[in-house]
Amino acid sequence: MAGEKIHIFDTTLRDGEQVPGCKLVTNEKLTLALKLEELGVDIIEAGFPISSPGDFASVTEISKLITKATVCALSRAVQKDIEAAGEAIKLAKRSRIHTGIGTSDSHIKAKFNATREEILERAIQAVKWAKAYTDDVEFYAEDAGRTDNDYLARVVEAVIKAGATVVNIPDTTGYCLPHQYGEKIAFLMNHVPNIDKAILSCHCHNDLGLATANSIAGAIAGARQIECTINGLGERAGNTSLEEVVMVIKQHKELGLYTDINAMLLNPMSRLVSETMRMPVQPNKAIVGSNAFSHSSGIHQDGFLKDTTTYEIIAPEEVGADSSKIVLTARSGRSALAHRFRKLNFEFDRNDIDILYEQFLRVADSKKEVEDSDLTELAFQHQKKALATA
Amino acid sequence: MAGEKIHIFDTTLRDGEQVPGCKLVTNEKLTLALKLEELGVDIIEAGFPISSPGDFASVTEISKLITKATVCALSRAVQKDIEAAGEAIKLAKRSRIHTGIGTSDSHIKAKFNATREEILERAIQAVKWAKAYTDDVEFYAEDAGRTDNDYLARVVEAVIKAGATVVNIPDTTGYCLPHQYGEKIAFLMNHVPNIDKAILSCHCHNDLGLATANSIAGAIAGARQIECTINGLGERAGNTSLEEVVMVIKQHKELGLYTDINAMLLNPMSRLVSETMRMPVQPNKAIVGSNAFSHSSGIHQDGFLKDTTTYEIIAPEEVGADSSKIVLTARSGRSALAHRFRKLNFEFDRNDIDILYEQFLRVADSKKEVEDSDLTELAFQHQKKALATA
Repeated sequence: MAGEKIHIFDTTLRDGEQVPGCKLVTNEKLTLALKLEELGVDIIEAGFPISSPGDFASVTEISKLITKATVCALSRAVQKDIEAAGEAIKLAKRSRIHTGIGTSDSHIKAKFNATREEILERAIQAVKWAKAYTDDVEFYAEDAGRTDNDYLARVVEAVIKAGATVVNIPDTTGYCLPHQYGEKIAFLMNHVPNIDKAILSCHCHNDLGLATANSIAGAIAGARQIECTINGLGERAGNTSLEEVVMVIKQHKELGLYTDINAMLLNPMSRLVSETMRMPVQPNKAIVGSNAFSHSSGIHQDGFLKDTTTYEIIAPEEVGADSSKIVLTARSGRSALAHRFRKLNFEFDRNDIDILYEQFLRVADSKKEVEDSDLTELAFQHQKKALATA
Repeated sequence: MAGEKIHIFDTTLRDGEQVPGCKLVTNEKLTLALKLEELGVDIIEAGFPISSPGDFASVTEISKLITKATVCALSRAVQKDIEAAGEAIKLAKRSRIHTGIGTSDSHIKAKFNATREEILERAIQAVKWAKAYTDDVEFYAEDAGRTDNDYLARVVEAVIKAGATVVNIPDTTGYCLPHQYGEKIAFLMNHVPNIDKAILSCHCHNDLGLATANSIAGAIAGARQIECTINGLGERAGNTSLEEVVMVIKQHKELGLYTDINAMLLNPMSRLVSETMRMPVQPNKAIVGSNAFSHSSGIHQDGFLKDTTTYEIIAPEEVGADSSKIVLTARSGRSALAHRFRKLNFEFDRNDIDILYEQFLRVADSKKEVEDSDLTELAFQHQKKALATA
């Protein structure tokens, strides 16, 4: 692969699983973890061990099972959290502890009733505690999206000095615009003296529908890890969609980036997560929605039938979806109708199609979708009439 | 309102309605058109009159009904299309014809087997035909996202000269990155000599999950109309979500932009469209998903209860959604539990909560969501034991 690698950090089992209704039992988590590894994610955030005995057990079992991906456990910047995380991942082939604390003034005051200096000390201490369990420690500066850049740069420098290998810059409330998030990452790349000792990670939320764009803006600015979930699951409006950032990077070769994700598995993975976590994916969801590759308007169908690239930038097979669908509705045109008749083994000339198209529109105006059986009926009636007048 | 206005062009009834399964009968279209007007959209794209007799009738009826918004009809750059559009909107108080043609080399060759010069002539001719029916003519340069910028600037200049009042720059295949789309709009703002005679419009598709970000990038660069749909409905992965662009503009006052949308109606409108068009909205959809304002993790709940702004940038009431929900799961913390007990009229001290929290986690590990009835049961049992030992 040419270019620089973007590490894909999947948090479906942690940030996704904490969504109301998405809770998983250990066996379900193990199944999904194996599939995530097969998909090619670099890091699996397996859970938040201190949060409940069930979650502790899940992280422990995933650590034993996974062979290639790094298994990561979440913790707050609190000693007992980090101890639980360290215990839960101790049997993993590759392990990571993800610890951190809020760094925006809103979080520092409202959540912790602390000062910036106190938070800085707690951040350094948390990384040091975590280093006792694993070399690979990721620090999150919660609400970094609303954190003052100069202070954020000091925090990043300090935690890298304390041993953090990855520093996560979350837009916790999903507030940033892409250029703002990109500028924040660029600021850190340019103002943290020891930035070459760690990589920056994008963790974006979708409250304004901008999570994918923000993550890509972060990667363009120099971040080398993106935190995401299958189907964009997560708190509130969810996290960055794994399938979207992966396909943006794949489609836009000019960015000079790549991931190790096997895109052909994106649609099967989406379905498995949706079923296991009982969270529907809307039909118009990018990459993995059931309509993502459907064409229904006449203008689009006509162009698409002449050359698929006129309306389609991704071949559905490339992401493991069923082939592009041409659905016949009242907005379909003559060329789509003729094409479907040919598929049904009826060859009509232009005059026939003109007559049949009028009949087709009457059927289409009365129902949502015209079925092949409707068309066969129309074709037979037309042939019968033609024979009678011949 | 301070700043410059972004015109909201809603195409739920046209680009949304052509989606498989979303077809509407005239009465349903009329109901939605009235609600769109109440929501505050500036332009309602009501349909594509040439496509079927049913759609022609719908556009005619909407034209009679709507009093404030502009009613717009779609057509290709074809005389009979434009005639049908002109006929259908002739009774509208304010009317617009939206006509256009593909301008990317892929469209020019594959769809039209034509040359750039021929397409330019057809574009000019189409605008002139449309001007016979209404002063307000919008031209779309289909697949503008993949059209060479110099040629696109020539097309835009020519159609404005021919009388176009709005020029739509669609990213038809949803391919552009936000900075690329923004640069395209900026290029046109800087290279089309008569650009002050018309406004540019963003029409983005969501194939890579970037429609909202692209539309905002276009507005930042100078476009003054955004084409969008409720719930992001539309071909394939859909169009730009109206609710998302409106709230980005509302939240980011530093952009100096505003819309006339009444945000309080966004959630009721989303539900109405979802039910009428039979298209589910996923729970993690920004602004209008059922989980968009739910908080479930312990860390988030604790911060949220201290100060809602730690995790929430939009108050749910502001967009007509039910109040923020605190859902109790195995990832909830002690403060959320104590808060819920207080709501249920149980006041416990810290020691009580420590004991109850352990019991709560056992319940939570065994089910997805802990109900108020579970908590009441726990509370009663706890009080009984306390009385027995007292």
